Amino acid sequence: MSDLMKRRRDLLGPNVSTFYDDPVHLVRGEGVWLWDAAGRRYLDCYNNVPHVGHCNPRVVDAIAAQARTLNTHTRYLHEGILDYVERLTATFADPLKTAILTCSGSEANDIALRMAEAMTGKRGIVATDATYHGNTTLVSHLSRSNIPEVGFGLAGCFRHVEAPDSYRIEDPDGQRFAARVQEAIDDLEASGTGFAALVVCPLFLNEGFPTQAEGWLRPAAEAARRAGGLLICDEVQSGFGRCGSHFWAHQKQGVVPDVVTLGKPMGNGHPVAGLVTSPEIMARFRTAFRYFNTFGGNPVSCAAAMAVLDELQSKDLQANARHIGLLAQDRLRALAAKHEVIGDVRQAGMVFGAEFVLDRATKAPAADLADRVVNAMRLRGILLSKLGRHKNTLKIRPPMPFDESHLDLLMTTLDIVLTETAVQG
Amino acid sequence: MSDLMKRRRDLLGPNVSTFYDDPVHLVRGEGVWLWDAAGRRYLDCYNNVPHVGHCNPRVVDAIAAQARTLNTHTRYLHEGILDYVERLTATFADPLKTAILTCSGSEANDIALRMAEAMTGKRGIVATDATYHGNTTLVSHLSRSNIPEVGFGLAGCFRHVEAPDSYRIEDPDGQRFAARVQEAIDDLEASGTGFAALVVCPLFLNEGFPTQAEGWLRPAAEAARRAGGLLICDEVQSGFGRCGSHFWAHQKQGVVPDVVTLGKPMGNGHPVAGLVTSPEIMARFRTAFRYFNTFGGNPVSCAAAMAVLDELQSKDLQANARHIGLLAQDRLRALAAKHEVIGDVRQAGMVFGAEFVLDRATKAPAADLADRVVNAMRLRGILLSKLGRHKNTLKIRPPMPFDESHLDLLMTTLDIVLTETAVQG
Repeated sequence: MSDLMKRRRDLLGPNVSTFYDDPVHLVRGEGVWLWDAAGRRYLDCYNNVPHVGHCNPRVVDAIAAQARTLNTHTRYLHEGILDYVERLTATFADPLKTAILTCSGSEANDIALRMAEAMTGKRGIVATDATYHGNTTLVSHLSRSNIPEVGFGLAGCFRHVEAPDSYRIEDPDGQRFAARVQEAIDDLEASGTGFAALVVCPLFLNEGFPTQAEGWLRPAAEAARRAGGLLICDEVQSGFGRCGSHFWAHQKQGVVPDVVTLGKPMGNGHPVAGLVTSPEIMARFRTAFRYFNTFGGNPVSCAAAMAVLDELQSKDLQANARHIGLLAQDRLRALAAKHEVIGDVRQAGMVFGAEFVLDRATKAPAADLADRVVNAMRLRGILLSKLGRHKNTLKIRPPMPFDESHLDLLMTTLDIVLTETAVQG
Repeated sequence: MSDLMKRRRDLLGPNVSTFYDDPVHLVRGEGVWLWDAAGRRYLDCYNNVPHVGHCNPRVVDAIAAQARTLNTHTRYLHEGILDYVERLTATFADPLKTAILTCSGSEANDIALRMAEAMTGKRGIVATDATYHGNTTLVSHLSRSNIPEVGFGLAGCFRHVEAPDSYRIEDPDGQRFAARVQEAIDDLEASGTGFAALVVCPLFLNEGFPTQAEGWLRPAAEAARRAGGLLICDEVQSGFGRCGSHFWAHQKQGVVPDVVTLGKPMGNGHPVAGLVTSPEIMARFRTAFRYFNTFGGNPVSCAAAMAVLDELQSKDLQANARHIGLLAQDRLRALAAKHEVIGDVRQAGMVFGAEFVLDRATKAPAADLADRVVNAMRLRGILLSKLGRHKNTLKIRPPMPFDESHLDLLMTTLDIVLTETAVQG
């Protein structure tokens, strides 16, 4: 074990997960590039937190300038949070025009669930079965992929439904998914817990970002509303233009959620997150719960978040996401024609990937192969990961300034690695 | 209503609390000073988040330098978090030698409660009756002062005991408090919930920072341990040298907690927080719950937090807190000799205040007077607040570089305001 890994285990405890068995030791970042302690450069095809690029100068300058001027909480008045929330909510349809700012997406989802309880008087939450929504005691129950031993008896409030899977499950218009949601709602109502909300990532990103027609989520959203519950869209990963076609992925799904939660990319790494909702839900929640967050919406966080919006807009990075997503799909399809292991190719703008299978006929997942590819790519200086219901899908989710030259390096290297892996296989 | 207040209500919702009915509109901070939009200067005698002073250059430079170099999460290796946790845990006694870093004190307390469940297999938590520990669904139940209508049915896990009050309750050695804690433990055990942890701020700061002999908390800590539960000390307000005599207030109480949670002052306003615990508890928690926090412990947060420790040490601000606390006590006692409304004077280093009473014999709280004093002080350019079990105690909790000249301005102004208020009275 390396010295750093040993110090890490002693100081941070066991089971602190890393990427790769011999994790990369990073020292510098710039744009879509990262450098390790040995001076080796990596193309970052994975990290969405540095949304407008690692160490983006506009964001760093905004943070430094505001931190030098004033940083305090929202019990005093400051224009920063008002200017930002005005600009943020302008990207949402009516009635999504009010916001709470927090430090993390977990805190935002934790509030969203309380909003559902405040609006419905009920506590039953439906989520998909291979997702992740955060780490508070309440919110961690949304994620069946990491069932905690501890949780203050909250498990009874949650039901998990089969996540969509466009490669394996026939559900072109979302009716099957809506029926599953309805079953979970009925079960919660029958249990006495009652139904409060359906929570989804509108790209189902952790579950393999299935290919879906526009409006696919509508039947499930209607089932939730018919039962008197809220639709909560967690756009922590999918938002801020990543899906290319729209600024928010729920817009692609043709739904207007009751609450949208935001996080990781919002401040390009500065800890700022939040949620957007209607004045009606906000007023009800603010009556039921006097929420205050010391750091949430402070002037520095708002300066960082505003700079991210400026950068997205001035460089039209949403259009870049759309353009690169389509090119990536072409390149991945070309690789699929050459490499039998690629069973399916999927993209939603600046998130794209390939699902590896042992056999195209049976679609048996090749999770081990995905692991080998991820590790081989790292050795060739490219950082990416894998995910999905069967843990066999490459997760390629680069910073938004990822361009054609970066895509070419990624795909050329992937071709080499797939060729080598097939030989070793 | 001012334009800013209207925008605030529209964008952030109703009931978003402010200080003062006509809140201060801040634009700049430096050291212990704040400036409003009209150019008016205020002496900040309230804010503990800017622990080493507003816009402290060492901290701002550290944030800017690291944000320009690299900011990423802890699934890659980086020395920043290891160097910081090593330095942080060196200030704690054995076995408190491992840490988790988060974005907020709320997230830290949320983890601490799960650690208690993981260690005991039980869910009953005992807290004091006028405290505040944070805003997640679970943690908000610790605060009886803000009983939420929403809470996913968790209220049954919590019991609140009478907070200490050295001015009104005879309990010189903490035996009475320990007996109250024991009653709550017995009640939790009888209810079937079982007892998992006692959670306290070791200064009982929100409850009026009562005067206590060293070791006062020991009997209650022993009751908690005897019952198989954990002692969790929330040092979000009391830590990092504020109490003057010790770096952590639990050290003044003569106890070694099982978990210590940290927050607000840790990064001087940068959203970083965390907890420190033993390797045994960390290992048990990390087995029961695979916790990951995207922003927690990132290189910029750790740079900010390290700069705070550097600044505290190089300027010996803990000694300053001790010195100023004793001087403040003398000045407040001199004011008490002159102003009948001051019923009691208390200090714990860089937190000090006076309890206002209508009558020294009955000790009837004068909460309205405290409000008038807080507002009159603001009009004279001094920011402070009030708190306590009876909401009648001045809360003076300035940034740590607060010096004798600042104290003199504060006390001279307070003398004038008390004289005027008595006339208006």
